[in-house]
Amino acid sequence: MARRKKIYEGKAKILFEGPEPGTLVQYFKDDATAFNAEKKAVIEGKGVLNNRLSEFFMTGLNNIGVPTHFIKRLNMREQLIRSVEIIPLEVIVRNFAAGTLAKRLGLEEGTALPRPIVEFCYKDDSLGDPLVAEEHIIAFGWASQQDLDDMLALALRVNDFLSGMMMGVGIRVADFKIEIGRVWEGDFMRLIVADEISPDSCRLWDIKTGQKLDKDVFRRDLGDLADAYTEVARRLGVLPAASAVSKPTLIN
Amino acid sequence: MARRKKIYEGKAKILFEGPEPGTLVQYFKDDATAFNAEKKAVIEGKGVLNNRLSEFFMTGLNNIGVPTHFIKRLNMREQLIRSVEIIPLEVIVRNFAAGTLAKRLGLEEGTALPRPIVEFCYKDDSLGDPLVAEEHIIAFGWASQQDLDDMLALALRVNDFLSGMMMGVGIRVADFKIEIGRVWEGDFMRLIVADEISPDSCRLWDIKTGQKLDKDVFRRDLGDLADAYTEVARRLGVLPAASAVSKPTLIN
Repeated sequence: MARRKKIYEGKAKILFEGPEPGTLVQYFKDDATAFNAEKKAVIEGKGVLNNRLSEFFMTGLNNIGVPTHFIKRLNMREQLIRSVEIIPLEVIVRNFAAGTLAKRLGLEEGTALPRPIVEFCYKDDSLGDPLVAEEHIIAFGWASQQDLDDMLALALRVNDFLSGMMMGVGIRVADFKIEIGRVWEGDFMRLIVADEISPDSCRLWDIKTGQKLDKDVFRRDLGDLADAYTEVARRLGVLPAASAVSKPTLIN
Repeated sequence: MARRKKIYEGKAKILFEGPEPGTLVQYFKDDATAFNAEKKAVIEGKGVLNNRLSEFFMTGLNNIGVPTHFIKRLNMREQLIRSVEIIPLEVIVRNFAAGTLAKRLGLEEGTALPRPIVEFCYKDDSLGDPLVAEEHIIAFGWASQQDLDDMLALALRVNDFLSGMMMGVGIRVADFKIEIGRVWEGDFMRLIVADEISPDSCRLWDIKTGQKLDKDVFRRDLGDLADAYTEVARRLGVLPAASAVSKPTLIN
């Protein structure tokens, strides 16, 4: 079989042409980057774990009626997804202060926010994905007011679901990022969750110990990133129990 | 200390006067009833488990900003709650056909519903808690249209959260029932989740095996009810690991 056509290569994933119109194949790389790619490494097994975890979260969302791009997992590193017209915004939902919010507003990391805060950042690596307000989004035509209302509702549903899921296994969702895209069904356009949901795109803290189980382990050199992601997968039953102590590269 | 004043005794719980105005003490009994109390039994330890589980679910909901009546657990069988003016409706959220819905509409138990369905039943044991439509609710003044909109939104948020939490530990939430009450904060009235959330008020099915982990075990004589509830609590880490194989009456 001829190699599929590469559509796009990002920092952690590659998109290939899919087998049917309207589909793509999403390949998860082992590359880890932070601080807008100033820090880089290859973390063996990360792509395999994120492929599985994104499958688990997106399948769950599909099941409760939050539409996502996920169709099915194809193999260890690839999943079949719906092709979307991506909205050029990172949608960040924050329950606890961390990262850029803590820095920008002078909040101590870990401070509980008075309510979940949804932030939009304009997706542009060369600009460092800057925070934008609804004013900018509407003015520059990145999304309509209706899109924004729908994105907010989607983001908050994902937050309720993901917070519940992780709380059930003793993990706090401090914040997470999603991307949202447009799909057309006949003349009808709707918004669906795209990209990935994984410990690359969430801040996950053990509720009892505060231990970080997300990409901050890499950003801040706190230990073995694959071990942290394996622990998340193990608690959710995404890995067979026997693999809990194995290296992630052994997962089939 | 003099015995507190009993405010109300139901089939599975007793409400006592609380230590402060606006509070009550909710006591969980071991009594199990089904089919509108035609079937009865005492299940040793059930009250202890439901007190813990309702604490766990309601605390989680409070944490994500879904207001509930739960203040704190006082001891093995009692919790401190806010006094509410209960709306005389059972609010049922269904993801899969079961129970009266399956019977009434001739659906096979376990059929996935096209989307979550929220039902309202008028709380009246002598009538068997009959299903009612919004028309009845508004006409008889049990709730306003605004209340109904708010109740629907609350019920769907609880569903997203609870479905996520249970999916994380391998359990499907087929349906559940909540009750909702009014509280006043100055001149402002708002609706909060009241009563209890426990395997008495949910249908919980193991995702892999389909095993029932809820009151249907008692309704249909499928095994030991306390064992089923203990399994739910164990998966959620509500019981210390060492108690997983103990009888629930040993839980402290």
